[in-house]
Amino acid sequence: MSKWGTIATWRMAHEGVVKASKLLAENGTAGDAVETLINEVEAFPFYKSVGYGGLPNEEGVVEMDAAFMDGDTLAQGAVGGIQNVKHAVSVARALSHQHYNSFRVGEGATKFAMKNGFEMTNMLTDRAKARWQKRLKELQATDKPYDGHDTVGAITLATSGSMAAGTSTSGLFMKKAGRVGDSPLSGSGYYVDSTIGGAAATGLGEDIMKGVLSYEIVRRMGEGETPQDACDHAVYPFIEKLKKRYGKAGEFSLVAMNNQGEWGTATNVEFTFSVATSDELARILMANPGPDHTTVIEPVTQAWLDAYEKRIHAPIE
Amino acid sequence: MSKWGTIATWRMAHEGVVKASKLLAENGTAGDAVETLINEVEAFPFYKSVGYGGLPNEEGVVEMDAAFMDGDTLAQGAVGGIQNVKHAVSVARALSHQHYNSFRVGEGATKFAMKNGFEMTNMLTDRAKARWQKRLKELQATDKPYDGHDTVGAITLATSGSMAAGTSTSGLFMKKAGRVGDSPLSGSGYYVDSTIGGAAATGLGEDIMKGVLSYEIVRRMGEGETPQDACDHAVYPFIEKLKKRYGKAGEFSLVAMNNQGEWGTATNVEFTFSVATSDELARILMANPGPDHTTVIEPVTQAWLDAYEKRIHAPIE
Repeated sequence: MSKWGTIATWRMAHEGVVKASKLLAENGTAGDAVETLINEVEAFPFYKSVGYGGLPNEEGVVEMDAAFMDGDTLAQGAVGGIQNVKHAVSVARALSHQHYNSFRVGEGATKFAMKNGFEMTNMLTDRAKARWQKRLKELQATDKPYDGHDTVGAITLATSGSMAAGTSTSGLFMKKAGRVGDSPLSGSGYYVDSTIGGAAATGLGEDIMKGVLSYEIVRRMGEGETPQDACDHAVYPFIEKLKKRYGKAGEFSLVAMNNQGEWGTATNVEFTFSVATSDELARILMANPGPDHTTVIEPVTQAWLDAYEKRIHAPIE
Repeated sequence: MSKWGTIATWRMAHEGVVKASKLLAENGTAGDAVETLINEVEAFPFYKSVGYGGLPNEEGVVEMDAAFMDGDTLAQGAVGGIQNVKHAVSVARALSHQHYNSFRVGEGATKFAMKNGFEMTNMLTDRAKARWQKRLKELQATDKPYDGHDTVGAITLATSGSMAAGTSTSGLFMKKAGRVGDSPLSGSGYYVDSTIGGAAATGLGEDIMKGVLSYEIVRRMGEGETPQDACDHAVYPFIEKLKKRYGKAGEFSLVAMNNQGEWGTATNVEFTFSVATSDELARILMANPGPDHTTVIEPVTQAWLDAYEKRIHAPIE
């Protein structure tokens, strides 16, 4: 049997990873699998940083960023600041079929989605609106408005050997209108080459862009590094560099998979992810930065999962 | 005397290179120099791909992309699809001072410029409008709507050793609303690290993004390659890869300078650029792809310059 695999950021991706796994095990394409995976996260209203239920910008408007990349052809499609579209990654995938105009932002991106028959809906759920209103009140008492920037970023490897990458996010909670993060940016939020492997990012996009980290991880895998070494070598020295040069580094995490289904991750914060391959059942793991530029990966505990479920469904007070 | 230098894409950058050179020779900062250089191009109405006089999108609206990067801190600012702002690169530079929300697109970008006192003006000149109307008519007879994507991309090295990068463009002529190219994308349109050097791109952004070429050139310089070798090694194999994998490659050109003021360029099309350093007077050169993944660089001829002057001022018929 040919190998297949998929890895995606955050616990929220797990149900999508399970769905994508079935598709890949049945010889589905890498593109279909990554779109299915991300669509699942986009549609679930209790994930507050992606798709339906995603948190809005400062003005109360949900603006989404997404990208899709075909690792065979290197074709890319991306959207930034798109509104009212249920599945931003599907719009990005449609754009990836165009040689010109494959990255669209703002109204132009939204128009493209409307004209091409994508499902449009008001993406601001009552729950997200309540969070936004709560935060508006809190802002009168704090000067640190930004947190929550959990992108779903995913890599898939099909039994054919083809790979794909995708990302989707509603971006930084309380962002300024039109703020775009790393998720739709080639090389920063995502990159994949079927002859090597792929990588995707989540975290503070403004800092991920400064290091073009997804490209750097794929490049290192191309030089023969394991996905884990590539993640460790690309991410940890960059965090030190950023602290030295820029004075600080936001939180970010990356996942990678090569074209053999081997995978890796690196992070400067507690980070969950989900992974499945033809050799290992879909499971949620937790990563933390370890000593000497390494990453500690362990199974997530039932206690953590229970607390997570409780947290995402808790009333907004 | 400490070395300084600057390199920028296209003949149109030359007057800006001369201005930036004076600034750098008098120990001006790399950031001021790159902004001054690009502002000069943005303000000149006869350059039809940047700033005032830039060609509009399909709907007749001038939408601009720009970026600024500080090679000391790696801070970046960028705008995509911004409207009515005279100096898009200056808006990008202002954004680079923010840790959050440093890349803004569409209406959000335009609002930021307005709120922060940037000069706003209708960027559609009569001349650009005439070209657009002419093209609308031609489009009834052709299926190849896109050409003209001449970004000004520039790198500066100050006597202090600091470096900066900047880009500005009105993007692909007749682009769809909200289309964003490589110019505001870290690693694709630009990248600079004062401990190494910088690179910037012009050409079909959709393809430049597929290779993250500016980052790759800087990375290669960081491994000790000369700017010319880094350009040749990053660009030509990628063009072959793109042709093989994607089936075609658009036109693009890159320039690079390291922190010693050495420079290089690579291109798959006739490409002019302007360069000046503490060792060489500002001059316009022409690059063409040479044999075996090399670049042929020669002084631009007076005949070429004369024809250029005539062309940019010719009536639109």
